[in-house]
Amino acid sequence: MITLFHCVSARSFRPLWMLEELGLPYELRMLPFPPRARERSYLDVNPLGTVPLLLDGATRMTESSAICQYLAARYTPNTLQVEADEPDFGSYLNFLHFGEATLTFPQTLVLRYTHFEPEERRMPQVAADYQKWFLARLRSLQTLLAEQDYLCAGRFTAADVSVGYALLLAEHLGLASHFTPAVAAYWSRLRQREGFARALRAQEAAARAQGISTLPSPDTRV
Amino acid sequence: MITLFHCVSARSFRPLWMLEELGLPYELRMLPFPPRARERSYLDVNPLGTVPLLLDGATRMTESSAICQYLAARYTPNTLQVEADEPDFGSYLNFLHFGEATLTFPQTLVLRYTHFEPEERRMPQVAADYQKWFLARLRSLQTLLAEQDYLCAGRFTAADVSVGYALLLAEHLGLASHFTPAVAAYWSRLRQREGFARALRAQEAAARAQGISTLPSPDTRV
Repeated sequence: MITLFHCVSARSFRPLWMLEELGLPYELRMLPFPPRARERSYLDVNPLGTVPLLLDGATRMTESSAICQYLAARYTPNTLQVEADEPDFGSYLNFLHFGEATLTFPQTLVLRYTHFEPEERRMPQVAADYQKWFLARLRSLQTLLAEQDYLCAGRFTAADVSVGYALLLAEHLGLASHFTPAVAAYWSRLRQREGFARALRAQEAAARAQGISTLPSPDTRV
Repeated sequence: MITLFHCVSARSFRPLWMLEELGLPYELRMLPFPPRARERSYLDVNPLGTVPLLLDGATRMTESSAICQYLAARYTPNTLQVEADEPDFGSYLNFLHFGEATLTFPQTLVLRYTHFEPEERRMPQVAADYQKWFLARLRSLQTLLAEQDYLCAGRFTAADVSVGYALLLAEHLGLASHFTPAVAAYWSRLRQREGFARALRAQEAAARAQGISTLPSPDTRV
């Protein structure tokens, strides 16, 4: 049985979404945000104090986009992965990384220095620097998404989950109004997926059942 | 023929190191740092203005750790990748992402706000926050590396190239003195590899031949 440790709307939403797209059975363990401060016993399970943590037999993973690729490769139907002999294999790997390293990390700087830090440690300049950085990188998807529904291989894949989470986070940060038209349409397509809706419902039901607030808690790494 | 666009000591050192480990033929195109400002024509080739850019036939990639996985999967010998049916497959994917998203990005904050920004925009607090963040995450490798020579699968893989570059960058930033003993020993093992030494020589020779400074230029994404 797969176990996923998750905070509402955090990066761990990526594996949750993948699990629902794949229709796999799993146990969802909700944590209050931030777990490092509010559930100290979690440090015994994951000393990094971050979510996600995914346990699958002897496999133990903490990087959300890596987990998407892992689940797509290990579990059927394998259409969510792009095989090494498909022409878009390189593009698939690139977008898996791009979604996290290029599109998510800069947004965590915005969050940290406008929301999480105490008043005297907030840094409007840093938040502005990385909001600009994020939006510039995001614009690079406009041409591609004006021509195709998904990022690669002519179908929905784990790469769309990686990038899609960055768009969810941007919406929480109030940045969705800056999306270019094709990016906005793509985000709308992703949100209409049954798997996405099921993941949102699973997160809400588990939070209520486990006595956790359902407010967003996007970054456990700061 | 594979073409790699590279700045001295930047993230594009990862694919260069992989190419040398695999013994593949490639063309190395050196760029002055930062290319966005100092070689405007590069924006026609890569509108992001970042390195690496790897071209391999119709494949076009910009994420350095994704390129490592791509090369390991597409080219023999395939020992540099971990196959989906090996027990350490999840760990392999996790470290590929961990090397960039968790160990490299925070260091770029240190670089940006202590070196690259003009004096009046420097932010010692942000640099300190993310130096601490990086070193805390790096310490999580101590236990693992005290027991094994490489990160996963009992052999050197593309995951070691991903994490190894983060250690190279830390050395350039003067952070190597903070490495825990097993991490320091691991970094020493990596530096002694023939492939690593060949990549350093290839970078230096190409920089001299193409009239580019051989000083480090680690981050083209800020």
